[in-house]
Amino acid sequence: MSDRARHRFLLISAFSLPEGAGYRMRAFGGSKEGMLLNADRVLPLLADIDWDVHPGAPATHGAWPVETREEFAITGVNRLPVVREACESGRYDAIVLLGGGDPGYVEAREIGRRHGVAVTACAHAQMHAAGMLGHRFSILDVSENHNLRMADLVVQYRMTEHCASIRNLEFPLPRPAHAGRVSVQDESERHARGEPSAMLDAATDAAEAAIEEDGAESIILGCSAAYWLQAPLRRRLLERGWDIPVLEGYSAAIAQARMLLALGVDASGIAFPKDPPPRTRRRKFA
Amino acid sequence: MSDRARHRFLLISAFSLPEGAGYRMRAFGGSKEGMLLNADRVLPLLADIDWDVHPGAPATHGAWPVETREEFAITGVNRLPVVREACESGRYDAIVLLGGGDPGYVEAREIGRRHGVAVTACAHAQMHAAGMLGHRFSILDVSENHNLRMADLVVQYRMTEHCASIRNLEFPLPRPAHAGRVSVQDESERHARGEPSAMLDAATDAAEAAIEEDGAESIILGCSAAYWLQAPLRRRLLERGWDIPVLEGYSAAIAQARMLLALGVDASGIAFPKDPPPRTRRRKFA
Amino acid sequence: MSDRARHRFLLISAFSLPEGAGYRMRAFGGSKEGMLLNADRVLPLLADIDWDVHPGAPATHGAWPVETREEFAITGVNRLPVVREACESGRYDAIVLLGGGDPGYVEAREIGRRHGVAVTACAHAQMHAAGMLGHRFSILDVSENHNLRMADLVVQYRMTEHCASIRNLEFPLPRPAHAGRVSVQDESERHARGEPSAMLDAATDAAEAAIEEDGAESIILGCSAAYWLQAPLRRRLLERGWDIPVLEGYSAAIAQARMLLALGVDASGIAFPKDPPPRTRRRKFA
Amino acid sequence: MSDRARHRFLLISAFSLPEGAGYRMRAFGGSKEGMLLNADRVLPLLADIDWDVHPGAPATHGAWPVETREEFAITGVNRLPVVREACESGRYDAIVLLGGGDPGYVEAREIGRRHGVAVTACAHAQMHAAGMLGHRFSILDVSENHNLRMADLVVQYRMTEHCASIRNLEFPLPRPAHAGRVSVQDESERHARGEPSAMLDAATDAAEAAIEEDGAESIILGCSAAYWLQAPLRRRLLERGWDIPVLEGYSAAIAQARMLLALGVDASGIAFPKDPPPRTRRRKFA
Amino acid sequence: MSDRARHRFLLISAFSLPEGAGYRMRAFGGSKEGMLLNADRVLPLLADIDWDVHPGAPATHGAWPVETREEFAITGVNRLPVVREACESGRYDAIVLLGGGDPGYVEAREIGRRHGVAVTACAHAQMHAAGMLGHRFSILDVSENHNLRMADLVVQYRMTEHCASIRNLEFPLPRPAHAGRVSVQDESERHARGEPSAMLDAATDAAEAAIEEDGAESIILGCSAAYWLQAPLRRRLLERGWDIPVLEGYSAAIAQARMLLALGVDASGIAFPKDPPPRTRRRKFA
Amino acid sequence: MSDRARHRFLLISAFSLPEGAGYRMRAFGGSKEGMLLNADRVLPLLADIDWDVHPGAPATHGAWPVETREEFAITGVNRLPVVREACESGRYDAIVLLGGGDPGYVEAREIGRRHGVAVTACAHAQMHAAGMLGHRFSILDVSENHNLRMADLVVQYRMTEHCASIRNLEFPLPRPAHAGRVSVQDESERHARGEPSAMLDAATDAAEAAIEEDGAESIILGCSAAYWLQAPLRRRLLERGWDIPVLEGYSAAIAQARMLLALGVDASGIAFPKDPPPRTRRRKFA
Repeated sequence: MSDRARHRFLLISAFSLPEGAGYRMRAFGGSKEGMLLNADRVLPLLADIDWDVHPGAPATHGAWPVETREEFAITGVNRLPVVREACESGRYDAIVLLGGGDPGYVEAREIGRRHGVAVTACAHAQMHAAGMLGHRFSILDVSENHNLRMADLVVQYRMTEHCASIRNLEFPLPRPAHAGRVSVQDESERHARGEPSAMLDAATDAAEAAIEEDGAESIILGCSAAYWLQAPLRRRLLERGWDIPVLEGYSAAIAQARMLLALGVDASGIAFPKDPPPRTRRRKFA
Repeated sequence: MSDRARHRFLLISAFSLPEGAGYRMRAFGGSKEGMLLNADRVLPLLADIDWDVHPGAPATHGAWPVETREEFAITGVNRLPVVREACESGRYDAIVLLGGGDPGYVEAREIGRRHGVAVTACAHAQMHAAGMLGHRFSILDVSENHNLRMADLVVQYRMTEHCASIRNLEFPLPRPAHAGRVSVQDESERHARGEPSAMLDAATDAAEAAIEEDGAESIILGCSAAYWLQAPLRRRLLERGWDIPVLEGYSAAIAQARMLLALGVDASGIAFPKDPPPRTRRRKFA
Repeated sequence: MSDRARHRFLLISAFSLPEGAGYRMRAFGGSKEGMLLNADRVLPLLADIDWDVHPGAPATHGAWPVETREEFAITGVNRLPVVREACESGRYDAIVLLGGGDPGYVEAREIGRRHGVAVTACAHAQMHAAGMLGHRFSILDVSENHNLRMADLVVQYRMTEHCASIRNLEFPLPRPAHAGRVSVQDESERHARGEPSAMLDAATDAAEAAIEEDGAESIILGCSAAYWLQAPLRRRLLERGWDIPVLEGYSAAIAQARMLLALGVDASGIAFPKDPPPRTRRRKFA
Repeated sequence: MSDRARHRFLLISAFSLPEGAGYRMRAFGGSKEGMLLNADRVLPLLADIDWDVHPGAPATHGAWPVETREEFAITGVNRLPVVREACESGRYDAIVLLGGGDPGYVEAREIGRRHGVAVTACAHAQMHAAGMLGHRFSILDVSENHNLRMADLVVQYRMTEHCASIRNLEFPLPRPAHAGRVSVQDESERHARGEPSAMLDAATDAAEAAIEEDGAESIILGCSAAYWLQAPLRRRLLERGWDIPVLEGYSAAIAQARMLLALGVDASGIAFPKDPPPRTRRRKFA
Repeated sequence: MSDRARHRFLLISAFSLPEGAGYRMRAFGGSKEGMLLNADRVLPLLADIDWDVHPGAPATHGAWPVETREEFAITGVNRLPVVREACESGRYDAIVLLGGGDPGYVEAREIGRRHGVAVTACAHAQMHAAGMLGHRFSILDVSENHNLRMADLVVQYRMTEHCASIRNLEFPLPRPAHAGRVSVQDESERHARGEPSAMLDAATDAAEAAIEEDGAESIILGCSAAYWLQAPLRRRLLERGWDIPVLEGYSAAIAQARMLLALGVDASGIAFPKDPPPRTRRRKFA
Repeated sequence: MSDRARHRFLLISAFSLPEGAGYRMRAFGGSKEGMLLNADRVLPLLADIDWDVHPGAPATHGAWPVETREEFAITGVNRLPVVREACESGRYDAIVLLGGGDPGYVEAREIGRRHGVAVTACAHAQMHAAGMLGHRFSILDVSENHNLRMADLVVQYRMTEHCASIRNLEFPLPRPAHAGRVSVQDESERHARGEPSAMLDAATDAAEAAIEEDGAESIILGCSAAYWLQAPLRRRLLERGWDIPVLEGYSAAIAQARMLLALGVDASGIAFPKDPPPRTRRRKFA
């Protein structure tokens, strides 16, 4: 399968919130471009792709963004029927799971493998991209509970040796539990208006600490609501003399999907066997 | 909180299947004793406990036992409302999640921590019990996809250094994907009738291989449908000269819950913070 | 073997000092309750057990508490005849080795295994209990040389991945080498009298540093002379917003012994073979 | 920098041999397509790229392919002026180092970083691609000494945890040291003529052993002279029931270069600082 | 302190057995040369040293060689007064602890450090020498329980990453527990008489298996009673085409002592502090 | 081969600079003693050896000391013909590669093994010596890029677990890239003149930080131009209460060569096989 065929991608959002919910941070309908965060960075990677965006399965954990492990688990399971339907439709070569904490990713790969559809996700793709650039990365992230989801992913993806640290900026997602606090969304809007952002300042300091204290050689971003930090953070660090790559998840997940398709692979059938598998192993290692 | 208070446990099955489903391996109602597998081994550990069994949330993944990652994820999420309700009821000191692959365990601990209720699960408890007995354990398990769930748990629980191997017996669960094959359930019934079991033979050989080739010092069982192997396997290995502990999950999970209550702890509030957490950390490691 | 049989425990102190020795920190005779440190926490765990305390073999390393590796080795060997005699007596199901640095533990398990008697020890049990609560623990401990004994145990018990740090409070044991310094014993007595303790303050700060800098998710205590810190330290940390479990050794070792008996196991016969072993392996891994 | 600009790649061969040398395995001149091994697989990945091939610096280690560490070191250093010249020319966005054992790769990245030119290499790219597909890969390779070069790379690239094994096919490169033996080149030509290849048989068996005994989830190929194995080996394994990805180096290195350019990165300036670096760190970890 | 000063070494045997004990494997008195096993290999390393041999503290564990963990612990503690007296005498620059399982080594280093006397031991020195020659070593050893002592040492010395395997020859030490079996001592005598030795055959096969299956790059010998294997095993393996170093403990321990003295060091005062230490650290890692 | 034969060593400098080059830090001719840095410490280790010094192959990377990876690679390859010629001459038992970053060491061992000549190098020998003294070492080093070479060596030598940190003093080598800065050479000369050295102060602080923050138990020096720090740094740390070994490379490399010769070994023929190897392995691990 050549990279030159015009590939067909479906980008699936993590979840959608009902109209009128107080915690909507992005569009859940309208143009596909309008549903993408960080579009400046992301759209060029899709220029020669036939692509579409799914707004995400309706949220059932609550009407707000996800932070806790429970919320991530529920959101992940909600996304699986969307993934399956897309795979079964035969209309896509690759599925890109949007959202920082990769809800449903492992299970979606299992489904994708059975249809020969590559599935990528934002945290996984950033960690692998970071590994190509240097040995150790640090994750900048939005809040305590979200940090722990990221830590779970580092372990699950076998990246503990490569993860220098998770640095917590404590600009949490807008959720009832954080009522009254300055959220990552507030800061994103402030920055978009050209105003100074305390979160960008905090991110710059946290990245510098990650470089100097933790041994970080690349920076990745934990939460998709913070992906807007990528370009200004890279610039700020360069101004301080730190020539360090700063990745973000949408572009990383799309670029990884492109790479997998270029190589004609999606996932290992040994790691993600069919049900039932054509052949089995007597012994495995974890 | 003393061990001497009469503790109150809720044992929650992994899922329940509808009446008449072709793949029912155990009772989903009736007496609480009747809903427990391996009751001979398990009941003595509950003798001084006030306990009850929940038959499990109705299965939504299909009307058969779970093996794939997707099935485990769905089952896990389905179990969370049961866990939350039990915690909120104030009627339990501990929740024991039944089932070999620990569906919903990480998320259930998050919920439990917020209510001061200890939550344990069968794979997690076996791995920790094995660690008290020797350095390395091997897992005997029923099928290729179930093995991979166990491997995921070993990684998630940070037990890779201690897991010598996962040995696959390939007596899968009774599921449509395995139609026409001899299942672990067939073997369990055969053994219960006093007939020779090819699965027990295979388990004995696999355990011996784990000891001699992989360095196993304890044996744990992957799937609750195979927990009946515990006593006869231990005996068979002893007959061959191998004095190796063989654990099973229900007793391990109950014993761990007892131990946690004895110590007045459930889970770390740093690893499972409240929402929002009273205090946050600037840096973490995965 | 059921948990419900009335179990018979022997608790064996690390060593006994002669009457009149200047460095006696606890009773070496009298009522069994009187010989236990931290009795408030410990006695409830023994309520349904038939138990006795052995005051410890007479010290031969000197007439003071142990801190150096040499002192630990001598003390450990002195304890072995007590262990063997208890095992051979047939009067005990489990032996609990008291004392923070686990002198003689590995060898005692070897003896215990040959008699089917479970043997537990305070550092080992705390580390395993901590592992059930979160991934990483830190050890708060009394002095430089004692820290290094704890570090040796972490390595020996294969817990390096889980040990975030050993934090040194530098309130050493009362020994000639520390003449003129404020000891852990002085602080214990001060605290018992209801006076402020500088050691408790230091422990609170050290635990906080372990949480914020080292990634600790549980706290364990290194030296039995410091086990009194458990409850007040837990409380202090909670007041600062850190909901972190604080363990202590006596209760952990008793609770672990209970758990092992509940499961009908003591130690792996592969890890602790008989002499000669009934069966041998051609290859092993360290 | 967008993926949509027409990228400019220079592919640099490992070394060139003089006309008439007895051990020439490929063209060192003529059309750029003619200098590429495995062109069927590779050319599609270059279809929208402006690319050129450098035939490689003239070999100074001898007039034969490289296998020993010394030969790899010499070849690597010889390639650096070619890399520097290409970077300084401003004519390329990425450099792809051809050849299985990545001679000169680490140093070439250092040079590339200073010019903002991405540099990729065949072993490095295969290992990273394998990591996206599953946890563990095995390397199939041509000879004892070449295996050890691959092992050195696994260590250097921090991939030891992910490398299940290196399996030696012992069809060495055509070199004086192997005079009289069947070489990988002989087998390549045999296969190209449609004749059965003993090396392909050996590779199939070795890959199966890697899957069943070593835990391999993907297969990568060590030596570029063996890259022709990719497609037939994948097919053979599939026929045996093993649905396992088989990678090869040229396509992996090109695909990785495409991915890096899509993300606008080349290498971490922390891992590969300028000379002198604009900013320095007081502490690092290896 | 120069290597050229005539160094003064005390070699201390592991233990001495009473006259007439049935399990004496070597001389416990007479000439110092006569008390050394493997003298051909060892004496040249002592040619420019002033050296003496201590026959070992009288055994108290029983009148036979040591194999179990308990026997090693007792033997280790018995040796400490000999070590201390030698250090305090001021007559030695280095102490070489003879015996394969290093009884008392960690504690003896603690004592040695306080007097500036280097202390080395046979297993520790072999592991470090092996590390200079290649990445991974395997241990050939005499019996199940002795193997486990070696495994404990590998862990204690932080060599797990470097230990490919422990291969058990099952020619145990002459002890009551092994009455009626062919011992390593029987084989040693057989070999000394020029007769074929089944143990040497077994060692050759085990070493080959270690090379081919476990990845061993050097071979070390576990038990001093088996050190005679060194030269013939090296020869046998060379005949089979395996050019692999085979070490033995006495020469390694002496050579390491020479190296330490040449460098003017004995042990780290941070790892083995004085009592009390002049300075303490607030935090340590295990 | 006995230690007592008069050994014949060739010490080979890393490179030689042309007369009149502005960055010469040592003699490249004249008496052999005059070409050795740190002669006070080094000469005693050579007193009973027949030794010679090779001034180093003429530098081709530039007329200044090496710091970048490219410079190290070029320098390493340049040294190989010197190594080969020395091995082929039959005049040497051991080759000691001078210079802090071990250019050409792995390849030189490959050559040495084929002639039975031991080859040692300064970083490798220091790391192994440090391992004998305690578990963890820190490296004090001169500059950012040089630090990264040291980090590469730590990985290559499989010492990551033992390397607590690399501490950067930022007194770089005298090179055009560092024009106008105070160099390690300036400080060396200042110290030699008996003047206070800011670099020695910085080294003392960095070593203390390594001890207190990173867990260092020994200190090793990265760059041969900084080996003069060994004695005064050891003294300064002792004055601050830190009894920590400080190693330097020349003496360590010579002492290791002596140890290898004493044991009659040079390198593993499995890790460094002949070309072609007499025997090959089917499987290896990295």
